[in-house]
Amino acid sequence: MSGFGDRLAGATARRGPLCLGIDPHPELLRAWGLGTDAAGLAGFSDICVAAFAGFAVVKPQVAFFEAYGSAGYAVLERTIAALRESGVLVLADAKRGDIGSTMAAYASAWAGDSPLAADAVTASPYLGFGSLQPLLDTAREHDRGVFVLAATSNPEGASVQCAVAPGAIPGRTVAQAIVDAAAEVNAGAARGSVGVVVGATLSAPPDVSALNGPVLVPGVGAQGGRPEALAGLGGARRGQLLPAVSREVLRAGPDVAALRAAAERMRDAVAYLGENP
Amino acid sequence: MSGFGDRLAGATARRGPLCLGIDPHPELLRAWGLGTDAAGLAGFSDICVAAFAGFAVVKPQVAFFEAYGSAGYAVLERTIAALRESGVLVLADAKRGDIGSTMAAYASAWAGDSPLAADAVTASPYLGFGSLQPLLDTAREHDRGVFVLAATSNPEGASVQCAVAPGAIPGRTVAQAIVDAAAEVNAGAARGSVGVVVGATLSAPPDVSALNGPVLVPGVGAQGGRPEALAGLGGARRGQLLPAVSREVLRAGPDVAALRAAAERMRDAVAYLGENP
Repeated sequence: MSGFGDRLAGATARRGPLCLGIDPHPELLRAWGLGTDAAGLAGFSDICVAAFAGFAVVKPQVAFFEAYGSAGYAVLERTIAALRESGVLVLADAKRGDIGSTMAAYASAWAGDSPLAADAVTASPYLGFGSLQPLLDTAREHDRGVFVLAATSNPEGASVQCAVAPGAIPGRTVAQAIVDAAAEVNAGAARGSVGVVVGATLSAPPDVSALNGPVLVPGVGAQGGRPEALAGLGGARRGQLLPAVSREVLRAGPDVAALRAAAERMRDAVAYLGENP
Repeated sequence: MSGFGDRLAGATARRGPLCLGIDPHPELLRAWGLGTDAAGLAGFSDICVAAFAGFAVVKPQVAFFEAYGSAGYAVLERTIAALRESGVLVLADAKRGDIGSTMAAYASAWAGDSPLAADAVTASPYLGFGSLQPLLDTAREHDRGVFVLAATSNPEGASVQCAVAPGAIPGRTVAQAIVDAAAEVNAGAARGSVGVVVGATLSAPPDVSALNGPVLVPGVGAQGGRPEALAGLGGARRGQLLPAVSREVLRAGPDVAALRAAAERMRDAVAYLGENP
């Protein structure tokens, strides 16, 4: 198996640079005529798996499964397995972060040999980018990817992400320091496997031009990010951005064909971001 | 049921200001003669539940259960239920953080009506303290507590936590801004239910004197924090600090009596921090 960076580039070149979210929140479950329980989760996920086969990346939002405890996680495990079986890359949106042996345990869960392990996982660096090292190590050993939160679109995010980081570079924000730390890990690789997360609607995104890795851009569509306005976000190169859409597509469900058609429309709308559009 | 701040104060006044960790990492499982699987987790947790009944607070580290997927979470659910049945307060160390409806889903999991819900949960504020609002709301409605990461002892933590936060207070660190935001939530309560996490070995901890809420202090004992040197950490008042110990006690296992004796020694060592020692 080749590194995650290579696999992602291959998948998006063939299938378009789009990440489709599986976000079974209670309102959507009800709108789809499903119960707000593990059985409803399973029905929701089955529909998404059927509709999203053939796309590049699918991102289950872990929180919506965890809300139902171990029963929800059993559904998540089956969903991850079914997605990988269908040939899409699976990005587990878990935003985990801790230190030492605890971080290593999260790495086992999401990037190791556990039934939750996906092709890539999101991570949260409040304990410092360096605290994620056990996850980066496990991911590399298993040819998986990690997307580290850098700058998010929610207004409260700036209170941490736009703080001025200590260190030798005057005025560098926390968000930029995270991107730069990821770039160091990716240096030397043909295509780095450590990505960052940058919100679609930021007025001053961090500079990702030297990242040499993918940039996940959540919040496209109904959440405010305009798919046609993403080119060059943070100085991104062609093929570097991976827009993620959830609600804009999911509200077309529960019909599988309608859901797939909505996903195809979004894929076409962001195709111009690809390496060879 | 009274608010978490009141319940915590009552428990620590009666039983001592100590939080005992359940950290079933693979090395410990092997040292206790248990398998590194869900059955081993269950055996480990059963021993801890038996040994820690009678103490104030017990903190399962969620990552070590999540590493085994849904099977690990089933053990965690049974462990949380058994701990609450035994009369201790349960603090789920999950360090979750997200925004909007996703944060609300984590709130359902850990502070709502899910089988994982505990008396309190830890949260990570990389997306801004304000992004945790759905968790704070759910916790308050259910008389539960939240401990928000502020400043941690790992060396990489300073790269984010000691960054200078934007806003009207010149030079205020991210860690201090988190403490101050928690203090705002606690203002007016007799005993606030929103705590913070501050590492035991920090040379310059944030000022928690105006927090009006509990301060969880992990890393005491084998992890470097000296139990006799904690008084007044960050300007804490008597009764405000809740030292957390894991490895120092757990390495006394698997014998229940030996484990309990180690926990009692630590409880006695930190008793001087209590409101009425």
